[in-house]
Amino acid sequence: MTSDRYREAGVDLTAAETTVERIGKAVRSTHDERVISEHGSFGGLFRLDTPEATETLVASSDGVGTKTKVATALGRYRGLGEDLVNHCLNDILTQGAEPLFFLDYLASSRLDPQVVEEVVAGIAAACRASGMPLLGGETAELPGVYRAGELDIVGTVVGRRAYPYLSQVRPARPGDRLLALASGGLQTNGFSLARTVLEGRYQQPFSGTTVGAALLAPHRSFLTAVRPLLTAGIPVGLAHVTGGGIPGNLPRALPPTVGARVHLGSWEVPEIFAEIERQGAVPPADMRAVFNLGVGFIVVCPAERIGEARKRCPEPLSEIGEVVAAPGVRFV
Amino acid sequence: MTSDRYREAGVDLTAAETTVERIGKAVRSTHDERVISEHGSFGGLFRLDTPEATETLVASSDGVGTKTKVATALGRYRGLGEDLVNHCLNDILTQGAEPLFFLDYLASSRLDPQVVEEVVAGIAAACRASGMPLLGGETAELPGVYRAGELDIVGTVVGRRAYPYLSQVRPARPGDRLLALASGGLQTNGFSLARTVLEGRYQQPFSGTTVGAALLAPHRSFLTAVRPLLTAGIPVGLAHVTGGGIPGNLPRALPPTVGARVHLGSWEVPEIFAEIERQGAVPPADMRAVFNLGVGFIVVCPAERIGEARKRCPEPLSEIGEVVAAPGVRFV
Repeated sequence: MTSDRYREAGVDLTAAETTVERIGKAVRSTHDERVISEHGSFGGLFRLDTPEATETLVASSDGVGTKTKVATALGRYRGLGEDLVNHCLNDILTQGAEPLFFLDYLASSRLDPQVVEEVVAGIAAACRASGMPLLGGETAELPGVYRAGELDIVGTVVGRRAYPYLSQVRPARPGDRLLALASGGLQTNGFSLARTVLEGRYQQPFSGTTVGAALLAPHRSFLTAVRPLLTAGIPVGLAHVTGGGIPGNLPRALPPTVGARVHLGSWEVPEIFAEIERQGAVPPADMRAVFNLGVGFIVVCPAERIGEARKRCPEPLSEIGEVVAAPGVRFV
Repeated sequence: MTSDRYREAGVDLTAAETTVERIGKAVRSTHDERVISEHGSFGGLFRLDTPEATETLVASSDGVGTKTKVATALGRYRGLGEDLVNHCLNDILTQGAEPLFFLDYLASSRLDPQVVEEVVAGIAAACRASGMPLLGGETAELPGVYRAGELDIVGTVVGRRAYPYLSQVRPARPGDRLLALASGGLQTNGFSLARTVLEGRYQQPFSGTTVGAALLAPHRSFLTAVRPLLTAGIPVGLAHVTGGGIPGNLPRALPPTVGARVHLGSWEVPEIFAEIERQGAVPPADMRAVFNLGVGFIVVCPAERIGEARKRCPEPLSEIGEVVAAPGVRFV
């Protein structure tokens, strides 16, 4: 998990290797038999043993990156709250978890009650939409830590593993198909690059809206779409496409011995990505390594169950590729 | 809980009242019968019903305020990790909870692997000391959000209510005594004021150490001290003395109909507080409203069980006052 944290944050792993190793060692030094997370998993898994029963709790903390900078530039904060909840929620969904509750943290150099209200309204709306109480949180005013007018928000979701999947069903294997759920935009990743390319153009008309509004398109929750698939025991792997794009996240849903082939052109890429690529002259490989490119979530599905998956899922599933014997993700 | 968030952050409640009300309303709109937190509680309580059993989970997210600024000024980061864990841990301890697991978030304008390593080492050490795995976390590099060289850290603890107390034993009532556990320093609160007064003097010798080192004295965990009291069902209220000092936190451990009288001089006030008061010419009432003044945690104890409490507790308990019929906290 630790090295994933670095990869997502864009730290040069080669240089930092020994530090990263030491951090991983420190984290593992706290673990015992109750920690049952698989390697590289999106959420931490904890076995709660009580005299009566055993539950598997799944938890994840995350932020929304520098999407906050676009929100502050446009003065639109509500979406950040939804982004935060849905990002966390999708992370534990990859572990077959139903959300139990959410906690938030919001900090700024100076707390603007209006801003806090908008962010919390967004968090509350997304929590209600997933049937999860906002159980607690903290608001902090930290002058001298944050730049004037900027804020950071952090969310933590706790859920319970409600469905068997992956190791419990069977691991993904060559021939399994990749079914994609649409992201509709950047979700919460790639904003450092996107802002470099598009800063100062947020108000500009773009595709029926503005560049800024397109960038702020909400991070979707995939709970409603994936739940019926989990109920039917269909997925053999689930990936939330966050920082690192498909190559950085799909392998986390696969055994280390296999890989994936992804068919370019097999799904709809939202226009905002073409705009970033064009305006920034960003090489296609970089685009794929940074952005989700329209694929928000990937369900790894046995080939023979695709029809059933499509019938059960309340939204379209694009077949974008398949699991192959060679590790790594190849775009063809 | 929402108004506590504001109070701790020092927001003017009079001005922001309607916004605060709207935020509270948004938070409550997500609640259902599974949320069983008492008003103003330090941690959120969630009832987890499974076919086999019912567990009460207790969770809290928090940061360490601008203590990070003192740490960055001195280049000493390890303590921040311990501060973070123990602050969260003590919050849920007030609910009679044993910790289950912890998650962390660390963000900065630029991630310095060395700094991350030190912070995580501190988090891991404090997690090990409380028998709680560091289940997951996130590290984010957010240029343009944080000031150069500054960082924020956020922790989330999840525990389970393992002991009956308060409503389950009986509510606190006039005549109950206040037993204090020593903080040994500022813990993680009051740093905005402390820094204003002492900035630039961190290297100066002070009381066998330096001003900076005295400010960075770790936030203690009270788990080991309080656990044997909870096991014996002694406490009828527990308060973690954080932002807002004793007047801001002790009432959260009491029914709204009663209050407390605190005897000044009945416990040892660490020298760093006298130094802040003197150097900043801070009025005593302000000192009491901002700092813990050496009282890290308060156990509200039936008078007849004080002897037993002292015998069971592995560290000294100072009797600093009693519960009285009139609401509010009065220092005498």
